[in-house]
Amino acid sequence: MSSKVVHVAIIGAGGVGKCFINQLSAFAAKSSVTLKTILLSRSKTALVSRDYSGINLSTWESDFASSAVATPAFPAETLDFLKSAPGPVILVDNTSNESVAAAYPQFLNAGIHIVTPNKKGFSSGIQLWNDIFAAAKNGGNPNGGYVFHEASCGAGLPVISTIKELVETGDVIKKIEGVFSGTMSFLFNNYAPLDGKGTMGFADAVKFAKDEGYTEPDPRDDLNGADVARKLTILARLSGLQVEDITKFPIQSLVPADLESAKDGDEYLAKLPGHKSNDDIAEKKAAAEAQGGVIRYVGSIDFSAGSEVVDKVSVGLRTFDKTSPIAGLQGADNIISITTERYNKTPLVIQGAGAGGDVTAMGVLGDLIKVLQRI
Amino acid sequence: MSSKVVHVAIIGAGGVGKCFINQLSAFAAKSSVTLKTILLSRSKTALVSRDYSGINLSTWESDFASSAVATPAFPAETLDFLKSAPGPVILVDNTSNESVAAAYPQFLNAGIHIVTPNKKGFSSGIQLWNDIFAAAKNGGNPNGGYVFHEASCGAGLPVISTIKELVETGDVIKKIEGVFSGTMSFLFNNYAPLDGKGTMGFADAVKFAKDEGYTEPDPRDDLNGADVARKLTILARLSGLQVEDITKFPIQSLVPADLESAKDGDEYLAKLPGHKSNDDIAEKKAAAEAQGGVIRYVGSIDFSAGSEVVDKVSVGLRTFDKTSPIAGLQGADNIISITTERYNKTPLVIQGAGAGGDVTAMGVLGDLIKVLQRI
Repeated sequence: MSSKVVHVAIIGAGGVGKCFINQLSAFAAKSSVTLKTILLSRSKTALVSRDYSGINLSTWESDFASSAVATPAFPAETLDFLKSAPGPVILVDNTSNESVAAAYPQFLNAGIHIVTPNKKGFSSGIQLWNDIFAAAKNGGNPNGGYVFHEASCGAGLPVISTIKELVETGDVIKKIEGVFSGTMSFLFNNYAPLDGKGTMGFADAVKFAKDEGYTEPDPRDDLNGADVARKLTILARLSGLQVEDITKFPIQSLVPADLESAKDGDEYLAKLPGHKSNDDIAEKKAAAEAQGGVIRYVGSIDFSAGSEVVDKVSVGLRTFDKTSPIAGLQGADNIISITTERYNKTPLVIQGAGAGGDVTAMGVLGDLIKVLQRI
Repeated sequence: MSSKVVHVAIIGAGGVGKCFINQLSAFAAKSSVTLKTILLSRSKTALVSRDYSGINLSTWESDFASSAVATPAFPAETLDFLKSAPGPVILVDNTSNESVAAAYPQFLNAGIHIVTPNKKGFSSGIQLWNDIFAAAKNGGNPNGGYVFHEASCGAGLPVISTIKELVETGDVIKKIEGVFSGTMSFLFNNYAPLDGKGTMGFADAVKFAKDEGYTEPDPRDDLNGADVARKLTILARLSGLQVEDITKFPIQSLVPADLESAKDGDEYLAKLPGHKSNDDIAEKKAAAEAQGGVIRYVGSIDFSAGSEVVDKVSVGLRTFDKTSPIAGLQGADNIISITTERYNKTPLVIQGAGAGGDVTAMGVLGDLIKVLQRI
């Protein structure tokens, strides 16, 4: 029996992308399916296997220097190239790009499968979400491609697959709560540690998180809460709550209004020490400690609260008892606590590293394997 | 397009079985696949849909009274009946029966899929494990059926699927540790609570767990540690460690040697109060508390320890610091902590109810859905 051939097209070769390529290369070597990578593209240049014979994943970095071409136009030219492949194609979007995500429906309608850690397709306007799943085989289109996005929340942690299985098997989600950002986890585990001995000011804690590699180049991209809000939007939609977009519920930004206009992360970091907003956060920290608790930056979806999305979903600082699992989190770990009709007395809890190249890439490769198992 | 038809054969209609039938019935009503239950068997009697048109799952309990027949002989007659079905068949083994598990290879070789919470097939001699996966499509036999057994450890918690995905994507498991028994969890959370105020003697705590429904009819079936050892055997094998059977590593039984011969659970419970073995356990509890810890009954696989299975795998009482997640467990929850090359600084942790009809049935139905997605 000759082995099945599946083609892989990878967009993005940054932190997650590089880890993914390494993992894919090792996986392909032992897989019973023959995997041929036919596209490996960065924003400006790409490796393209025009004859579909496959790119050598062990020499891709040096091949980029010697034989990269201009990146095919996206989506039209890329789509044409992938549609002409002599067999199934899996598109791996390792970017966080909104315009790549906007083209998912076209690729899925063409029968191309998509796996991605990119949150944008699943947390922007509900119309894009609806278009993606209307086009996807696992959304009901018999001729569509499969789409999986496990790593769009919690990286390699089995969060999305677990919520999907709970819902598919007839459970009813009552509450989802947790720390969804490695940055926010690291920041508050250091700023407001369990032992009450936090000695760093808030500005120092932000700088420390940046220096240790736990924030985006501009820390405001983490501290404004939008990343957590996007993850919550995804989980809410999977649980059956129609969240139109992230403007429909309260998000507590930790970026002071007058620093939103700072021209970059460096200017923001330079102006943060001594800023009066730090006192507000310090007051909340002290108030929490006075009641025997600590502050943590969390996201919450409480299906029983009110009747509207604005009542049910929220992102921001809250006080937790020191004995709670959320307070006891370490390092940059995420924790996701899911209360359902079946997991009612105590929640189902998933905890661990929720960011980082290898654990994110693993979530993406796991999704690619799911596609292979279904085609 | 006419809907695909898949046949389901269910063995066992006890606690888990009943919950599964209810969940399957609700799932079938909304599934795009037409599911026909063609066999629903108890040890002596069964409902059999000889013409493969399907049993009515909403009236099965009363139908058992009116139209049950003698259970078809297992495996031969059952296998013949299922092989003749006009389409794919999923066998759901909701028993904990060793002889049912021993026949899995025959069913898988006939292309029949198996989903089950039954630990026996995966934790008995390694030969049966090897035979099962040699016969299964997801073990390499292109004509075999799929086999999934998520609920054989941690009920509906995503433990087995997570370990499989870690290994498949190239991670290396370094340590697995946790509380794998709802009974042991409940027993020690009450006997040795975190606040150090446990006032029950060990015999009272066992009786309390039994009265609250957290033990087998004969509590020795939980307290001898074999159930935890079977779960560890499954996880060890999935992680790449060839455990021949549960006799190959140390298991600390909490049943005193002279009570192993008690004729049943009632005699055991009657003789336990005042037994000297309770003093040994009380001593361990006091010693743990003197160091600021608590005792918990855990299973552990440490891949770095020694060179043999006997060094790496163990089951028994250990002392945990009060701040550890294992010490802080509540109710009858399970907790499984997985340290790997990727989840290295802090482990990946999964926690929640690990026993009970509905959460176990959910794990089985989730597996059935996995089969539907692959055929």
